[in-house]
Amino acid sequence: MNRRNFFKNTTVSALGSTLLTPFNALEAAEHALSFKNKKAKNIIMLVSDGMSTGTLNMADLHLRRHTGKSSNWMQLYNDNTVTRALMDTASASSIVTDSAAAASSWGGGVRVPNGSLNVSENGEEHMPLWQKFKKAGKKTGIVTTVPATHATPAGFCVNSKSRNAQEHIAELYLEHRFDVVMGGAQKYFSAEARKDKKDMFSAFEHAGYQVFKNRVEMLHANHKQPILGVFGSDALPYSIDRENDENLRTEYPSLAEMTQTAIDAMNDHKQGFTLLVEGGKVDWAAHGNDIAGLIYDQIAFDETIKIAIDFAKKDNETLVIITTDHGNANPGVIYGGNANENFDSIQNYKHSNEWILNGFNPNTSLSQIKERINHANGIGITNNEAQSIIRYYDDLVSEDGLYNPRHLPFGLLADIQKKYNSVGWISMQHSADYVELAMFGPGSELLKPFVKNTDLHYLMLEAAAVKNSF
Amino acid sequence: MNRRNFFKNTTVSALGSTLLTPFNALEAAEHALSFKNKKAKNIIMLVSDGMSTGTLNMADLHLRRHTGKSSNWMQLYNDNTVTRALMDTASASSIVTDSAAAASSWGGGVRVPNGSLNVSENGEEHMPLWQKFKKAGKKTGIVTTVPATHATPAGFCVNSKSRNAQEHIAELYLEHRFDVVMGGAQKYFSAEARKDKKDMFSAFEHAGYQVFKNRVEMLHANHKQPILGVFGSDALPYSIDRENDENLRTEYPSLAEMTQTAIDAMNDHKQGFTLLVEGGKVDWAAHGNDIAGLIYDQIAFDETIKIAIDFAKKDNETLVIITTDHGNANPGVIYGGNANENFDSIQNYKHSNEWILNGFNPNTSLSQIKERINHANGIGITNNEAQSIIRYYDDLVSEDGLYNPRHLPFGLLADIQKKYNSVGWISMQHSADYVELAMFGPGSELLKPFVKNTDLHYLMLEAAAVKNSF
Repeated sequence: MNRRNFFKNTTVSALGSTLLTPFNALEAAEHALSFKNKKAKNIIMLVSDGMSTGTLNMADLHLRRHTGKSSNWMQLYNDNTVTRALMDTASASSIVTDSAAAASSWGGGVRVPNGSLNVSENGEEHMPLWQKFKKAGKKTGIVTTVPATHATPAGFCVNSKSRNAQEHIAELYLEHRFDVVMGGAQKYFSAEARKDKKDMFSAFEHAGYQVFKNRVEMLHANHKQPILGVFGSDALPYSIDRENDENLRTEYPSLAEMTQTAIDAMNDHKQGFTLLVEGGKVDWAAHGNDIAGLIYDQIAFDETIKIAIDFAKKDNETLVIITTDHGNANPGVIYGGNANENFDSIQNYKHSNEWILNGFNPNTSLSQIKERINHANGIGITNNEAQSIIRYYDDLVSEDGLYNPRHLPFGLLADIQKKYNSVGWISMQHSADYVELAMFGPGSELLKPFVKNTDLHYLMLEAAAVKNSF
Repeated sequence: MNRRNFFKNTTVSALGSTLLTPFNALEAAEHALSFKNKKAKNIIMLVSDGMSTGTLNMADLHLRRHTGKSSNWMQLYNDNTVTRALMDTASASSIVTDSAAAASSWGGGVRVPNGSLNVSENGEEHMPLWQKFKKAGKKTGIVTTVPATHATPAGFCVNSKSRNAQEHIAELYLEHRFDVVMGGAQKYFSAEARKDKKDMFSAFEHAGYQVFKNRVEMLHANHKQPILGVFGSDALPYSIDRENDENLRTEYPSLAEMTQTAIDAMNDHKQGFTLLVEGGKVDWAAHGNDIAGLIYDQIAFDETIKIAIDFAKKDNETLVIITTDHGNANPGVIYGGNANENFDSIQNYKHSNEWILNGFNPNTSLSQIKERINHANGIGITNNEAQSIIRYYDDLVSEDGLYNPRHLPFGLLADIQKKYNSVGWISMQHSADYVELAMFGPGSELLKPFVKNTDLHYLMLEAAAVKNSF
């Protein structure tokens, strides 16, 4: 009999009856306590970049309504096996951080100005955590769906006054011999695309790396050599677009596949490993108010939680940290008579808004616009709405945006979709919200309920019992 | 030496060193464990209505930057003395609840359709929790800043197919003899204003209640008679408007003052008491995208946390529950070069947007509009912006909104303010977000990390060891 029925139907003669049932809030603590005398040989940090609380909630709600099952993240809460905190994500320069400063807070343990990677305003450099763990004898790796050289993985690995120095960051990755580097953007590695014409692929190969440029190569990885896997010219495609395009599925691995490959490549190392996994396009989707991009990439990120936790449960010496670096756009489902049906309609979406908008050009007809949106979202927009879209391709109007080089109408499309899917956004930018953080395994007992992002740097060192003197 | 310095500067020879410092995540559990064999004689439930995570965060950020101190809510996390959960707030009819269905989930333990107070779609009535506790011998009370008969307090107290039957709800409060009823809206109690011309004030007095119609009367409450305190014709004013208007400060108590009065009136009762405290205008401010209304009413709500926790710490037999019934408008601070200065400018706001907009009429000049907004917000809006506002008073355009009977331009004003204060909103409606929940005292050890709103009904009964057979 479960507790609710017990209290619904029977007499309680003594309060001692609560002892018949588990302690609920204590279960997690008892679980954490079981790790008390153990150190974290391995650390897997999972970061859904730019994940507002609403993004976490909507992905869980979407999964529960679509499949009847919670997200892996929320299932950890149901199972009561993690410790949790809210995290203040500010940078040195602003209450609203960018991804470079946010990753530096974790990576270097010191808040730096937005745009910087582990370099303070006064030029002082802070040694990144993955370099510290490397010096402590561990293998270290990074995996992401955006360029491998992008702000978040770079913040764990390198010092650079500017996050934009991505060609240089590719060289620094080699210099420090990180053991797994996987993500997007061959343009920062290939001789043809780099401004300095250096062939970084060859350079990594000469240094003993196995180099992968597509999914099939990656799936045949050996576990002896370090890995450089760089897929596509820029970021990897959104999960929903990959899911619905056989060519993309062949060329690009999923985040879960990269994560599994990275763990397999590093887990037999005696001194352990540390791995960063970034769901980077969750942030890009929020910048584009791109709901299908957002929810399905959050779900793709959620799959890595199961991989990491399954590994940690077997291994018993692995700390898993699950969080985000900052909020972005604070999306949420808006009250209204059709909120349920509207939100559920996203279950039938076939493509991201990026896919929709990249399919138009100045010669696209109104009916072609309506057809493509109908194909992707199952909705029939009006002629006026289609007309408002085409004006962006005639260069009559344009939208700015962080990941919107063609100045396409992402904001406009999200606004049109809102009446069909009931999802709203506060902006196309990061927010100052405190964010959700969960930990599993040895070291999770060190977490306090409210932390600053920089606290994690020291918590990881302490959990791994690595002395902070480099 | 704190832990960070310890790990920054010294050698860790053994992992046992973590034992030198508190267990962090275990502290809260140990605190909860100390209540294990105790029942909750009293329960104080504090509800900041319609509080998105961003509202909680912004109030804390505002206080930390303005006063150097955390909010009382976040301080509980820093002190590690509460258990926490995320709560799913859906109703029977929608993933986005209204306040009536949300309060009914707690009040009746069963999800009902939006708009209903503890009555299911099929007409089945569910006994409200405050009636159950009343039958179990406890004193019970409700305190709010919106009408005393409004959805949230009513959901703990009565059954009604419609939340709108507020005159009838006033009668039900008397019928069930709740011990403390305090809030706004004399229009539902006075013979002059009620449609049925019943004088509910006299009816309560004849039943032995002391009746208060302003703050001074309330501050002279005796602790022997039950209390009806009804202030003003509708909701109480926003905290920031009350703070800056001596007449309002004389007429209206603060939420903290009402809370203290309610506790003092019930705390010597042998079988204990249960009290609901609602920061009701946090929700109304979110519906109006009214940032000064929102932040300062959230802070006014936060003051009641200190009152409740201080009482509970002395009393040692009181469960305190702190949460919200649903998100609303998902506000947040938006990234940008001036985010810090813009957000800090709210520290100098003198009035709510409700105060600003209620001060205009069709004869207001552009310069008067600019002056009033400058007085309230310290910003100089443009002539075009002032012109866009005046059109609403000429009835050329109008805005709808839940608490906007005059169809004033709340959304427009928030949009104008955004470039000066960097705060954005997804809508003027509730959201489906999971919400933050914290508990202190006996019963807090029963909380799981992820709960449905209905779970709280049974948790409160179990914590108080009250058999659920009525």
